[in-house]
Amino acid sequence: MAKFEKITIVGMGHIGSSLARAIRQNNLTKKLVAADISEDVCRRVVELGLADIVTSDLGASVEGSDIVILAIPVGAMKGVAALIGPRLKAKSVVTDVGSVKGAVIEAVQPFIPESVDFVPAHPIAGNENSGPESGIVDLFIGRWCILTPTPKTSIRAVEKITHLWEGCGARIEIMDPARHDLVLGITSHLPHLIAYTIVGTAEHLEEDMKAEVIKFSASGFRGFTRIAASDPVMWRDIFLNNKEAVLDVLERFSEDLTAMQKAIRRGDGEYLHEVFTHTRKVRRGITDLGLEGFSSPDLVRKRHLEKEG
Amino acid sequence: MAKFEKITIVGMGHIGSSLARAIRQNNLTKKLVAADISEDVCRRVVELGLADIVTSDLGASVEGSDIVILAIPVGAMKGVAALIGPRLKAKSVVTDVGSVKGAVIEAVQPFIPESVDFVPAHPIAGNENSGPESGIVDLFIGRWCILTPTPKTSIRAVEKITHLWEGCGARIEIMDPARHDLVLGITSHLPHLIAYTIVGTAEHLEEDMKAEVIKFSASGFRGFTRIAASDPVMWRDIFLNNKEAVLDVLERFSEDLTAMQKAIRRGDGEYLHEVFTHTRKVRRGITDLGLEGFSSPDLVRKRHLEKEG
Repeated sequence: MAKFEKITIVGMGHIGSSLARAIRQNNLTKKLVAADISEDVCRRVVELGLADIVTSDLGASVEGSDIVILAIPVGAMKGVAALIGPRLKAKSVVTDVGSVKGAVIEAVQPFIPESVDFVPAHPIAGNENSGPESGIVDLFIGRWCILTPTPKTSIRAVEKITHLWEGCGARIEIMDPARHDLVLGITSHLPHLIAYTIVGTAEHLEEDMKAEVIKFSASGFRGFTRIAASDPVMWRDIFLNNKEAVLDVLERFSEDLTAMQKAIRRGDGEYLHEVFTHTRKVRRGITDLGLEGFSSPDLVRKRHLEKEG
Repeated sequence: MAKFEKITIVGMGHIGSSLARAIRQNNLTKKLVAADISEDVCRRVVELGLADIVTSDLGASVEGSDIVILAIPVGAMKGVAALIGPRLKAKSVVTDVGSVKGAVIEAVQPFIPESVDFVPAHPIAGNENSGPESGIVDLFIGRWCILTPTPKTSIRAVEKITHLWEGCGARIEIMDPARHDLVLGITSHLPHLIAYTIVGTAEHLEEDMKAEVIKFSASGFRGFTRIAASDPVMWRDIFLNNKEAVLDVLERFSEDLTAMQKAIRRGDGEYLHEVFTHTRKVRRGITDLGLEGFSSPDLVRKRHLEKEG
């Protein structure tokens, strides 16, 4: 028995199309509607057979749906919310997958009718690829999905979105929106900013040097290039919409980097050794938690299946 | 038929013990000697059965060897070179695995007798683990090993060290030492410095925030913690011994980071989008070269076996 009658996903990129695949595989809805403003994306979604109805008419796409999922760049939230708001079904639930929560709540909530709930959400999953072809059916298995309900959000709505994500294999965490934005500022936004910057720095090198940098990228650089290949629009919007938290953690980082620079210039080996010994312990914290295993999809899938019995 | 009569590896950490395993598996020498100043490491090497002779007497360990490999931190090179120099066999070849080449040449070359060759080398391989247990027999398969011969190095010696590394599955690149230090400054030393710094920044957070950072580290931070778990002594020595190149690339990086900071503060989405679009292309350069596959040991092993016939 499907949990929901009708679900609409607005935005069929990497996350939206992964969700469509996961929702179908886990039989979570009777009818799945996929919407995207791009006609080209819609055509590809039809070819991939990811939904029952595919449309580029975002307003029409939400009519009659129990759950509407906004899987679009953060900067597009306000415009889309204004468009769909008047056409939402009474007692339906709107949710999103944006990497920033404060700005999304500010953009979306005003357009949500009284009879509808908004449950801001952020699944900690995804890779650097884009488009409906890049979706992965088990992308969310074993991953966290953070919900940041507002004072307006009903418990019933939070439960529904919890069912949705747990049905896709994710684990739920409830968090304050501002807290989310600060924590993700450190764990996600700052690392992406730094990766973009260092790859950009390498981009400015002379041509022959650039070729060598790519050739010998296995020595540390390569991991940064993967992160710096993430969707440009999505990430532009994240930085513009989590400005305060990003600038705050960036300032702390810059201070620490200046201290490193000083230590290298002065030849202060003791300082460097002390910092490097501490950071090694952070890694141990992660491996002790068994979190590292989660980077292995096979292992996670296995655990998920065991849990399911 | 083994290519060499006797090989000595000085330093049985991650790289030294990986080499010992690879040399034995590929039957590259009749006799393998493993030396380490730590009695404890020597005991573990004996237990692991990684060599024919295991000793903490570094000077004695090199006697009669055709090839002596220094697999020790860059900062230990000078002292060890002084110790083994007088006991090297005539016409033997000394090589190393240090991540910095200019400073290592300066430290080692003066102690190498006229009848002996020194071939500075740097395999682009390894992970964040340490100690003889962490060695991996196929660590070097498909990986680059950069040789930076000096004007004193004979072609015969370069050929021998090429045989050694190719015998372990590596591919050889010849490079000028100063060029090596600048290229690796960008691809390896700067990424490590930045990873150490950002993990250090997270370390300074309040306790409850730290727990959340670890919990949600999948969003980008985790990759940095792996790099920042690398051996503290090894990396302290790299930064102290490649000071100029590291400070040079760090300055370029800091300028670019300041530009990013400004763009975020001003809300300059156009600038951010342009940088992010460019960096995505760098990644494509790497995947187009098929380099990404090299992060998959199975694929690399398969290719290696196919090549071997």
